[in-house]
Amino acid sequence: MKNTFPLATKIGILGGGQLGRMFIENALRYDVEIHILDPSSNAPCAHLTAYFVQGDFKDYETVYKFGQTVDVISIEIEHVNTQALFDLEKEGKLVIPSALAIQTIKDKGLQKQFYEDYEIPSSRFRFVENKAALKEHIAFLPAFQKARKDGYDGKGVTFLKTAADFEQGFDVPSILEKAVDINKELSVLVARDQEGNTEVYPVVELVFDPVYNLVDYLIAPAQISEKEVEIAKKLALRVADSLHSPGLFAIEMFLTKEGEILVNETAPRAHNSGHHTIEASISSQFDNQLRILLGLPLGSTKSYKAAAMINIVGSEGHSGKVSYEGIQEVSALENVYIHLYGKEETKPGRKMGHVSVIGANFEDVLEKIAVVKEKLKAVSR
Amino acid sequence: MKNTFPLATKIGILGGGQLGRMFIENALRYDVEIHILDPSSNAPCAHLTAYFVQGDFKDYETVYKFGQTVDVISIEIEHVNTQALFDLEKEGKLVIPSALAIQTIKDKGLQKQFYEDYEIPSSRFRFVENKAALKEHIAFLPAFQKARKDGYDGKGVTFLKTAADFEQGFDVPSILEKAVDINKELSVLVARDQEGNTEVYPVVELVFDPVYNLVDYLIAPAQISEKEVEIAKKLALRVADSLHSPGLFAIEMFLTKEGEILVNETAPRAHNSGHHTIEASISSQFDNQLRILLGLPLGSTKSYKAAAMINIVGSEGHSGKVSYEGIQEVSALENVYIHLYGKEETKPGRKMGHVSVIGANFEDVLEKIAVVKEKLKAVSR
Repeated sequence: MKNTFPLATKIGILGGGQLGRMFIENALRYDVEIHILDPSSNAPCAHLTAYFVQGDFKDYETVYKFGQTVDVISIEIEHVNTQALFDLEKEGKLVIPSALAIQTIKDKGLQKQFYEDYEIPSSRFRFVENKAALKEHIAFLPAFQKARKDGYDGKGVTFLKTAADFEQGFDVPSILEKAVDINKELSVLVARDQEGNTEVYPVVELVFDPVYNLVDYLIAPAQISEKEVEIAKKLALRVADSLHSPGLFAIEMFLTKEGEILVNETAPRAHNSGHHTIEASISSQFDNQLRILLGLPLGSTKSYKAAAMINIVGSEGHSGKVSYEGIQEVSALENVYIHLYGKEETKPGRKMGHVSVIGANFEDVLEKIAVVKEKLKAVSR
Repeated sequence: MKNTFPLATKIGILGGGQLGRMFIENALRYDVEIHILDPSSNAPCAHLTAYFVQGDFKDYETVYKFGQTVDVISIEIEHVNTQALFDLEKEGKLVIPSALAIQTIKDKGLQKQFYEDYEIPSSRFRFVENKAALKEHIAFLPAFQKARKDGYDGKGVTFLKTAADFEQGFDVPSILEKAVDINKELSVLVARDQEGNTEVYPVVELVFDPVYNLVDYLIAPAQISEKEVEIAKKLALRVADSLHSPGLFAIEMFLTKEGEILVNETAPRAHNSGHHTIEASISSQFDNQLRILLGLPLGSTKSYKAAAMINIVGSEGHSGKVSYEGIQEVSALENVYIHLYGKEETKPGRKMGHVSVIGANFEDVLEKIAVVKEKLKAVSR
């Protein structure tokens, strides 16, 4: 084991959104320099480091040059130029997760193939080249059409119940994913270090907002049987190990009405389903991401008995400069932690922040979730 | 109660050392802009915000102009230009703590007079104008000579046992403080909001390094009687209330061998004796400082059953670019949190970072303190 520090002082992160912001927050405890690449001068990270570089993380030259200025490169979004990362790796630069892992995951088609190759249970799927090709798959419905690239937070996903819905389908290379009857949506975070050691966080249960198709709130640990916990954790580890890459991975799963657990999607980075770990776990997802980059031992994923996380999204009917209602009331609650992402503008459904709640039991936590959801609003001024 | 947010988006902090760094770390969770003024381009905060201003916080013009660019001004060091703060207050700018509170505390003579005026028990003292005047106080020995201004971390303090020690006395306006027989050194943090509401943290017990005269480690809560806890907390509240200012205050005390509790010194800001609150308390000292600035309700000061904080100071015989030994081993310990301050250069006794430990009982915590003290070293490369 290496015995001195710093091992890598310059960390480059592709993407400067809220995940980067929370990564920086934790990283300030270590003697490291955080470099951020993001196209927007208003990104949540833009003012948080003197090493902010405005530029497009999808552009080969930009990523390649940015990578050369740092010791280790990581991501907070997977839609980045992987060719530049492959080339940086060839030159010996540390890229975490690996360029191959990012490439596999950022294309939802390759991601589904990966599950198939490694015999990881996942819902059945088909490739479709464009909108016209949808009609070859009428017998496969109901299904979700997912654009292979650039989808996130419900964008690039549409539900096709019958052939009548084809009109609203996407005209881009996509996959069709067989709809399954879902009992619960789960997520498991796995931290995998450079030597292949892993730590798994408690399984969480995600409750989705039906309008925005993004996480409304989560509770941790998930209220499922011990056997289901065991299966979910094993499955998550199988995904992380099969990617053969160090990194932090969020594996989202469906617990079907038949009691089967299927992998839905994997994120090769910190994830919304792990925000509660900042307060609920000894070492948060962001802390473990940093430990992996620095070659430090993984942090403990032991967690509070009961925790929850509520997303604060822009209220319906409000667009423009944001202000927050209910901050006073919610700040006064014990064991309730507000996180605002520093976004200037709100719009309906935009993730503006989140609130974490920890407690000794679920009644207490659920009560606080209800208060937060009722009081705290992101509105326009 | 005001119901919308942000209330104050631009926060100016005088000083950019480790306290500012930890303040920023917490402040990233809120939608605020942190502006930092520090004379050094290498300050621990220098690269952590795009709003870093290099300049002298002791200079009237610099502080005055800096203050005009922000909504609320606070400090992480008390040795600042208070005249500029008085003038900014006159113009309606929010200054927390108040210019008067800072002025009272930054001059150790005025601070001692303040204790006298408010009948706050403190060791006896005398004013001395210069080194030559020391000889008028031979009968007052043994005593500590403390320079009235600019002292910190043991600097500007010297012990005068007999007249033979006068040669090493300071030739600046000072106070002589009667030496007392100390059983334990204690500290109590008080958060006082803009409306005068207060929250008090558990009393902590400080163990000093005899060479560097700064905190070696602390344990929280202090191992003293319930009655002593009550007296210490009341005394701390009396100090904070008597300053008639919002802010975070650290009140350091002596528990004498006779069982008396005397106020030693007050810091009108976050303090080394509160670093453990980041992990050990629901709301840390930095979170409460921010809440006070923003006009939010005070956060809960409820804390873990047992906590400790160990300062990492530069090792004897090492000066120059820093590296850290033992980070791997200490990172592997559960419930042990390393904080490095990002200082480039180490020198013997310089505060380079700290480690917090939390636990269910003191045996566990004390064991980890021993490991940290043995393993973790700040050395030169």
